[in-house]
Amino acid sequence: MTLDSRIVEEVVEFRRLLHMNPELSGEEQETSQRIQEKLDEIGVPYETGFAGTGILGIIEGEEPGPTIGLRADIDALPIMESSGEDFSSENDGVMHACGHDAHTAMLFGTAKYLLQRRDEIEGRILLIFQPAEEQSPTGGSKQMMEDGVFDEYVPEVLIAQHVWPQLPVGQFGVMSGPIMGNSDRFKIKVTGSGGHASMPHDTIDAIVAANQIVTSLQTIASRNANPFDPAVVTVGKFNAGFQYNVIAETAELEGTIRTQSDEMKQKVKRRFFEVVENVAEAMDAKVEITYLDGYPATVNDAEWAEQVHTTVEEMYGESALPALTPSLGGEDFSRFLQKYPGVYYWLGSSVGEGQKPLHNPSFRFNEEAIPYGIEAMSQVAIDTLQTLKNKG
Amino acid sequence: MTLDSRIVEEVVEFRRLLHMNPELSGEEQETSQRIQEKLDEIGVPYETGFAGTGILGIIEGEEPGPTIGLRADIDALPIMESSGEDFSSENDGVMHACGHDAHTAMLFGTAKYLLQRRDEIEGRILLIFQPAEEQSPTGGSKQMMEDGVFDEYVPEVLIAQHVWPQLPVGQFGVMSGPIMGNSDRFKIKVTGSGGHASMPHDTIDAIVAANQIVTSLQTIASRNANPFDPAVVTVGKFNAGFQYNVIAETAELEGTIRTQSDEMKQKVKRRFFEVVENVAEAMDAKVEITYLDGYPATVNDAEWAEQVHTTVEEMYGESALPALTPSLGGEDFSRFLQKYPGVYYWLGSSVGEGQKPLHNPSFRFNEEAIPYGIEAMSQVAIDTLQTLKNKG
Amino acid sequence: MTLDSRIVEEVVEFRRLLHMNPELSGEEQETSQRIQEKLDEIGVPYETGFAGTGILGIIEGEEPGPTIGLRADIDALPIMESSGEDFSSENDGVMHACGHDAHTAMLFGTAKYLLQRRDEIEGRILLIFQPAEEQSPTGGSKQMMEDGVFDEYVPEVLIAQHVWPQLPVGQFGVMSGPIMGNSDRFKIKVTGSGGHASMPHDTIDAIVAANQIVTSLQTIASRNANPFDPAVVTVGKFNAGFQYNVIAETAELEGTIRTQSDEMKQKVKRRFFEVVENVAEAMDAKVEITYLDGYPATVNDAEWAEQVHTTVEEMYGESALPALTPSLGGEDFSRFLQKYPGVYYWLGSSVGEGQKPLHNPSFRFNEEAIPYGIEAMSQVAIDTLQTLKNKG
Amino acid sequence: MTLDSRIVEEVVEFRRLLHMNPELSGEEQETSQRIQEKLDEIGVPYETGFAGTGILGIIEGEEPGPTIGLRADIDALPIMESSGEDFSSENDGVMHACGHDAHTAMLFGTAKYLLQRRDEIEGRILLIFQPAEEQSPTGGSKQMMEDGVFDEYVPEVLIAQHVWPQLPVGQFGVMSGPIMGNSDRFKIKVTGSGGHASMPHDTIDAIVAANQIVTSLQTIASRNANPFDPAVVTVGKFNAGFQYNVIAETAELEGTIRTQSDEMKQKVKRRFFEVVENVAEAMDAKVEITYLDGYPATVNDAEWAEQVHTTVEEMYGESALPALTPSLGGEDFSRFLQKYPGVYYWLGSSVGEGQKPLHNPSFRFNEEAIPYGIEAMSQVAIDTLQTLKNKG
Repeated sequence: MTLDSRIVEEVVEFRRLLHMNPELSGEEQETSQRIQEKLDEIGVPYETGFAGTGILGIIEGEEPGPTIGLRADIDALPIMESSGEDFSSENDGVMHACGHDAHTAMLFGTAKYLLQRRDEIEGRILLIFQPAEEQSPTGGSKQMMEDGVFDEYVPEVLIAQHVWPQLPVGQFGVMSGPIMGNSDRFKIKVTGSGGHASMPHDTIDAIVAANQIVTSLQTIASRNANPFDPAVVTVGKFNAGFQYNVIAETAELEGTIRTQSDEMKQKVKRRFFEVVENVAEAMDAKVEITYLDGYPATVNDAEWAEQVHTTVEEMYGESALPALTPSLGGEDFSRFLQKYPGVYYWLGSSVGEGQKPLHNPSFRFNEEAIPYGIEAMSQVAIDTLQTLKNKG
Repeated sequence: MTLDSRIVEEVVEFRRLLHMNPELSGEEQETSQRIQEKLDEIGVPYETGFAGTGILGIIEGEEPGPTIGLRADIDALPIMESSGEDFSSENDGVMHACGHDAHTAMLFGTAKYLLQRRDEIEGRILLIFQPAEEQSPTGGSKQMMEDGVFDEYVPEVLIAQHVWPQLPVGQFGVMSGPIMGNSDRFKIKVTGSGGHASMPHDTIDAIVAANQIVTSLQTIASRNANPFDPAVVTVGKFNAGFQYNVIAETAELEGTIRTQSDEMKQKVKRRFFEVVENVAEAMDAKVEITYLDGYPATVNDAEWAEQVHTTVEEMYGESALPALTPSLGGEDFSRFLQKYPGVYYWLGSSVGEGQKPLHNPSFRFNEEAIPYGIEAMSQVAIDTLQTLKNKG
Repeated sequence: MTLDSRIVEEVVEFRRLLHMNPELSGEEQETSQRIQEKLDEIGVPYETGFAGTGILGIIEGEEPGPTIGLRADIDALPIMESSGEDFSSENDGVMHACGHDAHTAMLFGTAKYLLQRRDEIEGRILLIFQPAEEQSPTGGSKQMMEDGVFDEYVPEVLIAQHVWPQLPVGQFGVMSGPIMGNSDRFKIKVTGSGGHASMPHDTIDAIVAANQIVTSLQTIASRNANPFDPAVVTVGKFNAGFQYNVIAETAELEGTIRTQSDEMKQKVKRRFFEVVENVAEAMDAKVEITYLDGYPATVNDAEWAEQVHTTVEEMYGESALPALTPSLGGEDFSRFLQKYPGVYYWLGSSVGEGQKPLHNPSFRFNEEAIPYGIEAMSQVAIDTLQTLKNKG
Repeated sequence: MTLDSRIVEEVVEFRRLLHMNPELSGEEQETSQRIQEKLDEIGVPYETGFAGTGILGIIEGEEPGPTIGLRADIDALPIMESSGEDFSSENDGVMHACGHDAHTAMLFGTAKYLLQRRDEIEGRILLIFQPAEEQSPTGGSKQMMEDGVFDEYVPEVLIAQHVWPQLPVGQFGVMSGPIMGNSDRFKIKVTGSGGHASMPHDTIDAIVAANQIVTSLQTIASRNANPFDPAVVTVGKFNAGFQYNVIAETAELEGTIRTQSDEMKQKVKRRFFEVVENVAEAMDAKVEITYLDGYPATVNDAEWAEQVHTTVEEMYGESALPALTPSLGGEDFSRFLQKYPGVYYWLGSSVGEGQKPLHNPSFRFNEEAIPYGIEAMSQVAIDTLQTLKNKG
């Protein structure tokens, strides 16, 4: 059964609506409302109240059978959009720069398409709309599980897809084992002693101290990481001082550490503290470190990764499955996968030349990826249920 | 004639009022209004409209004679006060952290005291209340002169005093030649290319680029400055990034360069551009530099510095005049001194232990310095007029 | 046929003799002489004169058939040994810190063992003793080929093994595709202007300039490399200045850049020049860069890697073949593999606790690896000839 | 009495001979021998054995009177000369790059000239030829005094002159108080853990660690020093690593710290240890610091500085005495001045354009300064004796 172009059009429209109205992690009230309205329209029953704004939709196949779950994340980022899209964010300083608008709209589209193919479904498909995916280390997944999202229906396999701007439309990223990284988060507050810009000797310059810290942190990736067990240390914010002619008393840094293996995570964490504390002391400054152990690595189950691979290969051929390396992006879906086997895969969504990466103010999503996203996830769901049933 | 303690009390009260109601450079409307009211109270005629909020008061002695000017600056700084004083700023984020409240109140006190001693005054004393001293490189002095502050009465000597937290109360800093430095100002905008924190290879990290710039700028003072012709390069603000897990696209730095000689100023300025432009290029980033040539060095006239020295020595003895080194602070009074000979000296105002430097959020001024400030400036004015007349 | 323990003893003895008498790249006269004497003893015919000290031994099987080659490298490093071994280097400042002594001795042992098993050999086995493996980018392999080492007998497959201190004895590292990295080499000469230590303003400090370069080079690995397509930039030598109280006029750095993909190699090379040239200019210094494109990545042929894997698995079981990541070490065998298909694998040789890495002054090789090295290479040779013959 | 041009010619010749035959600190045997021969020629009695190669010559005036001393230093530096002079060093790697050849020759010339003017001398003039001036912190002065150089004749005033390439010939640098700085010396040995260039994660890179130390040390001058109480921290040597593809296990740095006041010296010394120890710890490396408190500041006595000033002004006019700032050069004469009052002044010796600073391999001394050096020192000696006698 072919995907009806009207579903695609509706998904495009829904996605643009979400894109214009992004909401920050934990504040997805309107978004949640909109999803519920769409589910109402197509008659999918759902429950709410998981992690605040999270929703669990339920599709029952014509035949009874096992239960699986499909997940989309629904929150946006505190980024001032400059993508140039006609349907750019109308919520100043908030942007769907990570494709969650597309995830949400495509999961709705998948639901609508699956309803049309109910005769092929042997079992139950859960639709998990998850809030606060960008809120590491808290995340929405843990709270959804604590709020009982899987209490009534226990999924045997969980599946999620993520738009991927490095891949052309029509290609997929599917791999066994770790696909996304450990994602820790830190804040550093450096406190020196402020004073007049012309009398540095009477002060302890917090900017210079913080600067030495950032410089030394570069050596973690360059010298302490294993080239084949990588580590990324990013300082994403650096705010210090309030006046050009006053030496700054404090500097506040925020950032993230990404690794793949637990061994490297532990090593980098140790080195991080050693560097920050000792360099601060070398600069005569005080330092407070907040370190949040964030999302663990997202580890795909070998069997279900193979299932997705097979389904996609049958649908689009071998060329749709290029050889790829993992990412060190953090992903809250990892916490679901710690409890339930499953697979997380990438959906090619490049706009071609000029494509900006995820989280960039000019990030754009290629809507031509939408039919691939709907068809593939639908077929993967149907095939996975089939396989589970056959296993018995 | 001794200084009446009631004048001191009034000056203390006025200073505290100003301290509680600080106004930023160019926005000193209320402050100006308050000064005018005080001058009205004591019957000193004045003109307004110089550089917006500036005031020129005029005291005529009993005998005619030469004209000199006494100057106080009236503006405050964008600093969030944390001095703990009972009379702390009620204007959030604005603070008299450079003693201009005391300068203004003491110049009023000096006026009141001089009126009582009019019989000793042979000539005319101008009271110059100057706005926007902290607004380098614009400053208020130039605009006051352009607005004709000295058009009617041309001063032969200009005199200013500045509270000095490094000196104990009762001591003065008087020196011939340069006492304050060249004070230039810069902004640097580093533009890289933002992106996801886990994919640095797809970005150009503006924080890391700006960081290399700040590191390299340290070598100007450490390697390019002459130990006996000093240079200070301070980055007072460093703001970059908006989200811990997004690599920053831009970083904005602001700071100041202080030197004493013109030769060193030119060398440091050249090195500044070389460092910033080339390091940015090394880091693959773009950079925009705004460089403002600020206040020139404040250079005291040898003759009138000697006059102040003599007056102070006669009043308080040799021990009130310790040997001191100049400062690299910027001072808008320098522009007055480029047009008219004069002298700028420091008034000891340390609170003792725990004294914080000028421009520090916890800066405090020791009010016991007030009688010294009033008496000394009054006597210096009277003596200077006398000397001028004798030279005559 | 089991490996005779007397062969092992002889190989141990030969390896220790070589270890005590290491010779630098291109100067392996004595080493070459010793190998020739050993080949004479066991009656293996050989030719000399390849790349100076290189040797080609030839073993003919009882049955005619295809030709393959086994390669050992024979040179040592300019390192002052501090391993503590009884048989430490007697050639001051030169050390077999990369296991070439073991490679050479084990290839001799393999030859002796293969002679005993001549009835199993269907074809011809070339023994390639290669000089100057450590002399990147020149290397000995290219010169051996130019000197005609394969002119008479053209190998269909080339095989080499390398001792591997990260692996326990009894384990092997076998992988398809890239196993060793691109290995480029650089020299940087920074020229400032020297002078008296107390007058930095009259000089351009080459140490400080070189220092800023090394600091900025760290950001190539930390910010420009892809965590999954790694790059390593190592400065191995930094020599500058001759007197504590004289500012250095020049600084000389040497180092190496390691990458796996050609794309990353090109990116890192471009960034290297950008960083070094622009930081030098920022520091007002001159710089000369010598950049040598070194050994390419060592890329194993999928088919013959599979062959080694199968042979080793049959001999020692699956546990002898742990999952491993590639190395970024440089390897001159890569140039042989650019001309002839083949495979390069690692031989576990860890001494356990206290094991130091290759090229460390305290590196030690566990001689218990020797029987594994001889048996595995012998069987791989026999099996490879068999497979080639079967393919026809 | 005019200075005979034959004396000048002899001094030029002697200076060139010394220049061609420089000897390192403590090894001035030949130099000492040559001085003794010259003193023999002119009949000046002398004693030897002070600090090894030191010499004390004695000139008695026609009239008895007080005793003063004139001092010249005689040692050279471990620098490879590249001055291009015809009479360049014939002792490879050793060079008179600090003008001690001229000091020595001019002191001989002064002696010869004073002998001709013996009738003007009322008292005793000691000629002090001092070894090991460049050997901070040991120095030759202390040992000379311990060896009894002033046991028989106690000088009331000591005088030394130093050639000064920043000053034109015919000018002098004379000042009261500190003229040369505190001069401390340090060695830093950073120990990491070496290894293969491609496996930084298995090592602790001593070059990168040492590099972070040098970077952080720049902030002492840029942030901790008072612009008007300066500090200079110079790393003059940086040696690490022995092979481009081996991560360095150790790095050895040597350098010097210059200050003027004791307060700043103590602050900088404290900051030096804080920076080096904590940055090393931040980089996971070990560090050994050797810190030698070196020559103290050279402090001229106000009275005798005034005497030199007067004499020079009378001889050459006011223009020969430009206003100058002190130097932070170290000077062993400071130890003599800690025991005996006196004065140290600079003799203009610039060759004009292309002049290189002291300690530079291309440093050149302008021999036209020689007559000034001889005449001025002779007259200063005669006048100082006269003044002492008058004081009675």
